[in-house]
Amino acid sequence: MEDDILIHNGLLLTMESGLPAIKNGAVVIRDTKIYDCGPQNKMDLGGLNIQADKKIDARGGIIMPGLVNCHTHVPMSMFRGLADDLPLDVWLNEHIFPAEAKHLNPDSVRQWSRHSCREMLLSGTTTCCDGYFFEVEAVRGMVESGIRAVAGQGVIDFPAPGVPDPAHNIRVAKEFVKQVKDLSSRITPSIFCHSPYLCSKKTLVAAKKIAEDAGILFQIHVAETKNEISLIQGLEKRSIIGFLDDLSLLNENTLLVHSVWIDDTDIEIIQKRSARVAHCPESNMKLASGIAPVPKLLDAGIAVGLGTDGAASNNDHDLFGEMDMAAKLHKVACMDPCVMDARTCLRMATIEGARAIGLDGRIGSLEKGKQADIIIVDVDKPHMVPMYDPFSSLVYSAKSSDVSLVMVDGVLRVREGKLL
Amino acid sequence: MEDDILIHNGLLLTMESGLPAIKNGAVVIRDTKIYDCGPQNKMDLGGLNIQADKKIDARGGIIMPGLVNCHTHVPMSMFRGLADDLPLDVWLNEHIFPAEAKHLNPDSVRQWSRHSCREMLLSGTTTCCDGYFFEVEAVRGMVESGIRAVAGQGVIDFPAPGVPDPAHNIRVAKEFVKQVKDLSSRITPSIFCHSPYLCSKKTLVAAKKIAEDAGILFQIHVAETKNEISLIQGLEKRSIIGFLDDLSLLNENTLLVHSVWIDDTDIEIIQKRSARVAHCPESNMKLASGIAPVPKLLDAGIAVGLGTDGAASNNDHDLFGEMDMAAKLHKVACMDPCVMDARTCLRMATIEGARAIGLDGRIGSLEKGKQADIIIVDVDKPHMVPMYDPFSSLVYSAKSSDVSLVMVDGVLRVREGKLL
Repeated sequence: MEDDILIHNGLLLTMESGLPAIKNGAVVIRDTKIYDCGPQNKMDLGGLNIQADKKIDARGGIIMPGLVNCHTHVPMSMFRGLADDLPLDVWLNEHIFPAEAKHLNPDSVRQWSRHSCREMLLSGTTTCCDGYFFEVEAVRGMVESGIRAVAGQGVIDFPAPGVPDPAHNIRVAKEFVKQVKDLSSRITPSIFCHSPYLCSKKTLVAAKKIAEDAGILFQIHVAETKNEISLIQGLEKRSIIGFLDDLSLLNENTLLVHSVWIDDTDIEIIQKRSARVAHCPESNMKLASGIAPVPKLLDAGIAVGLGTDGAASNNDHDLFGEMDMAAKLHKVACMDPCVMDARTCLRMATIEGARAIGLDGRIGSLEKGKQADIIIVDVDKPHMVPMYDPFSSLVYSAKSSDVSLVMVDGVLRVREGKLL
Repeated sequence: MEDDILIHNGLLLTMESGLPAIKNGAVVIRDTKIYDCGPQNKMDLGGLNIQADKKIDARGGIIMPGLVNCHTHVPMSMFRGLADDLPLDVWLNEHIFPAEAKHLNPDSVRQWSRHSCREMLLSGTTTCCDGYFFEVEAVRGMVESGIRAVAGQGVIDFPAPGVPDPAHNIRVAKEFVKQVKDLSSRITPSIFCHSPYLCSKKTLVAAKKIAEDAGILFQIHVAETKNEISLIQGLEKRSIIGFLDDLSLLNENTLLVHSVWIDDTDIEIIQKRSARVAHCPESNMKLASGIAPVPKLLDAGIAVGLGTDGAASNNDHDLFGEMDMAAKLHKVACMDPCVMDARTCLRMATIEGARAIGLDGRIGSLEKGKQADIIIVDVDKPHMVPMYDPFSSLVYSAKSSDVSLVMVDGVLRVREGKLL
């Protein structure tokens, strides 16, 4: 048996609902899991095997769950900053699609996946939910980095990198699920249908069936742009969410990515079906897609996580920035400074994000028995002083570069702000 | 004579209009100023006195002007995160005003001013434009930190910290200008009238007169909230900008802070009078004040700089965050991804910010004869790789923690990301 690890002397934010911050908090890690967690003076350390070099002093830091990024295309960091400040169609058709056609191959996907995952680990993200092409190679990059991930092979009814004939898209996705199942306990397979406008009804239904049969997450881009809405409403004579619901695609294993152009009726459907939402404020803002009605989704009790989207449209994988952006965007959009308070945003980036991608039983909060995905945020920096409320400091003042330590599955990946 | 300093081997962004990034760029600093600047291979280093230890290798970095923060209340970092996610009136009346009454004194103002300035230096800001009470003490804190600043004593027609009797507000402001005039060549005095709703017409006019007589900047919060607009329009039967114009308050030495609730006619007036604007997107979003029509202001050729506002309403002094936020906010607000491109945002945070506060003759770009306010941004970080376009990388990917070196007036203040 490995030695136990103790992280102590920090301000502990477990992110369990309603639990306040705990001064002098501690976490004991045994193997890959949290063995104990709480106020240090109420913890029985007697029976543990903690060597001196396995004690991590978190003094001057906040101990909290690793962040959960609910929407990424990790290999796309190879196109970070390639083309910005352009209309969506010009950006996609004249820059991104040609660049993908030219540069995507198994090697580049693996390399840039690893690159993005390292960027995420350095910035305190311990789990991402990803979808792309050559996804098995993306997964290899993830595994090499040490991150936890839900990963889905892209399904699209057009010739795609690695799947030149779309007739095989469902078969490739099905094989992907088998291929990655035993690669690492940190990888959870998933199905990623691109969108209702690039997948036929038949494809959507077949892809959802694979996901249901395997009991895994079905990810789909939905209602990202106004154009998409016009298109689907023109063809199907109902809302895009109504359309997906009629195809029986919505349940608790469905992650609706973006969900910008949805109305109150759509929200009722999402709520009734217990479907989940990934909100990507920075991508939606930068591409001028629109503003998702997130406060309404939250009011309806829907699980909403935060996603960065790919680095080509953000241009980073920084969830600290995303929390701050989400809070401020919705306050001004609703003209109400009370919406999206700091606790809500921090929950979206941790436990609610985990719930959105179906991993809340294993990660997203610091609780006994959960996987040891833990970060320490250094607060001994001018921009973090004073600290009246740690939730507020983390959302409105902290930078991802304040993350000093990152652990995934009980394994240290970042220490003193450096990758190990 | 001091030894000359050479910064070389970096990618040089002078921020001179239209000039592209220069590979292998260099800057020579003599005393407090830029002696030479450009491609290293076209630079005559023969006659210079550069010792080995005065050569700064910027390899893997971008050399650019220090950032200009056009609106701060530096002592307010003492209230950072004190109260967030609240309605504006509750925030002000139940939290900020009582805290100011209790905690503001010359010592605390000096201490927290210095604290904020250090935060700014660490994040690449070399100049701020500030207004507060006990401002002479705030200036002492600024001088101790080494930052450059335009500083104005607050003028308000209510009892204020340090000015219990508002009858003396003009006299105190006038004395402030004298007091700080010779404190440091880095400090430029200014007058800071709080707002048209907390200052009478008589006070506004008298305060502007001091500024005009001294040839200094007149700062004023304007059109920040809808309530303010209703109030002034109800009383004065015209727009708030029209009202200020009728009082002859608008000219090239007037900085209109916020300018959220203004219309096309107001923009015409601002343009005609050559008045300047400080845009504070994060503060306006977090307090749910509204969205200033910045793309229209820029189209009219008005000088618009970026400001963080006080740390109580932001909650940091990070202009890298502010650039990213400004770009994304206006893209989604205009539903146009082409507005507020990266170059525009970077100019707002440098040369246009300098123009907004009347210092563009001395700072804001790297040109021979300007003061040596220079930063180096490290790009050798996962989130900055790849770099297709440095402007885009700086606005959409860089974090303030990537700033590795900061120089103000030829003096190094930050090196390897640490305060000296």
